[in-house]
Amino acid sequence: METLHVVKVGGAVVEEPGKLEAFLGSFAALPGRKVLVHGGGRSATALAARLGIETKMAGGRRITDAATLETVVMVYGGQVNKSLVARLQALGIPATGVCGADFDCIRSVRRPVGEIDYGFVGDIVSVRAEAFSLLLEAGIVPVVAPLTHDGAGQLLNTNADAVASAVAAGLSDRYAVSLKLCFEKPGVLADPADDASVLPSLSAAEIPSLTASGVLSDGMLPKVKGALDALEAGVAEVVITSYSALSGGTRVSL
Amino acid sequence: METLHVVKVGGAVVEEPGKLEAFLGSFAALPGRKVLVHGGGRSATALAARLGIETKMAGGRRITDAATLETVVMVYGGQVNKSLVARLQALGIPATGVCGADFDCIRSVRRPVGEIDYGFVGDIVSVRAEAFSLLLEAGIVPVVAPLTHDGAGQLLNTNADAVASAVAAGLSDRYAVSLKLCFEKPGVLADPADDASVLPSLSAAEIPSLTASGVLSDGMLPKVKGALDALEAGVAEVVITSYSALSGGTRVSL
Repeated sequence: METLHVVKVGGAVVEEPGKLEAFLGSFAALPGRKVLVHGGGRSATALAARLGIETKMAGGRRITDAATLETVVMVYGGQVNKSLVARLQALGIPATGVCGADFDCIRSVRRPVGEIDYGFVGDIVSVRAEAFSLLLEAGIVPVVAPLTHDGAGQLLNTNADAVASAVAAGLSDRYAVSLKLCFEKPGVLADPADDASVLPSLSAAEIPSLTASGVLSDGMLPKVKGALDALEAGVAEVVITSYSALSGGTRVSL
Repeated sequence: METLHVVKVGGAVVEEPGKLEAFLGSFAALPGRKVLVHGGGRSATALAARLGIETKMAGGRRITDAATLETVVMVYGGQVNKSLVARLQALGIPATGVCGADFDCIRSVRRPVGEIDYGFVGDIVSVRAEAFSLLLEAGIVPVVAPLTHDGAGQLLNTNADAVASAVAAGLSDRYAVSLKLCFEKPGVLADPADDASVLPSLSAAEIPSLTASGVLSDGMLPKVKGALDALEAGVAEVVITSYSALSGGTRVSL
């Protein structure tokens, strides 16, 4: 099978010009088929504030009322996505932006109301691999905004890490997928204060002890759990790495 | 050659739920290959107002400073485009949203500063027919936001009528293109107060007398001139018609 790189990069990178430039240079240099999945939460929060819309989070997730949905559609689907595509075109990468409604490529269901009503948040139910293959086999790089749809006309807000994992898993029957979760640190650090303390690998069995010792905390634990989910779904490789290098980092294994 | 319908619909239709529903039903029912080009100016003006950005127009065109560009990218590329795609998917139409940067499908140059500095406004220089053909031959309906790019990373704001004419012209080597310019009236009216007075046809030779008599005025004259440009560029047919029927109307000829 051909290798496919699915690269996820968060808002903290795409919204800072210097970091974005470094990331895009490395992404453009990645050989072969590739997909970029981006966030944009900081810009969404900033636009919401300018529009007088209160941002409410629960467990790290954005509670998405109608006004917030409109905001994230504008920011993720418009501002961030189209800017990334234009920048990639300038680097010679034949990119195209998509959200889950485009090509009907990612369907979701609105999250049921439990203790918390997340509003217009979608949990992914299917990834249409043919849609991505059509683009990838034509040499085109899909740039995926973290928005999905329910098939009945409703756009929904979906976490970018979840989109990246689902796309990687959904394409693993067709490609040997390498999922790269990129962030500011060079990988999972044994000592959070020491960028040289990158764990080269991390397995499911090590999670309890790494959590107990504080190595895995905050934002990293859901990333690692998402990585394990992706591996269980057939993704060949998951690496947590730096946005600037897209190499090295921490390889997660089952 | 296969027929291709290129349908342009303006902000006044896409931004009113009842009109939009009528339009999408008619558009979904159009047989064969089709492209939708949309506006969204009213929503852009509304968002700009909420953000405290002053809207300045010159000759019917939006003067696009950096803050205004950000606004139109969010509205045209995000809000309007993604909503239309999600709605079309719900009608069973396999749509995908694009702006000019996606697939590098429409390139433009920033309009030179003359008497007026239009800011980040792009005049189209090329339409990449292969990008549209890739989608159309896969049975997909491109939904085009009126944004273009310069190939060097800059998004630019481009009039939706100009985008529709350029896409129609750019695809006329490959398809027998029928360009439908849709608006609230059922066509060009001999008597603006009488919707039953539609001119069934209108030729270039008639323009001076129709302008002198006031039949062609305001927004209609540029539409007719755009239609003639498209015909000269090889488009098979241009019709000015109602958004709700997409049939009948005024056929423009050279």
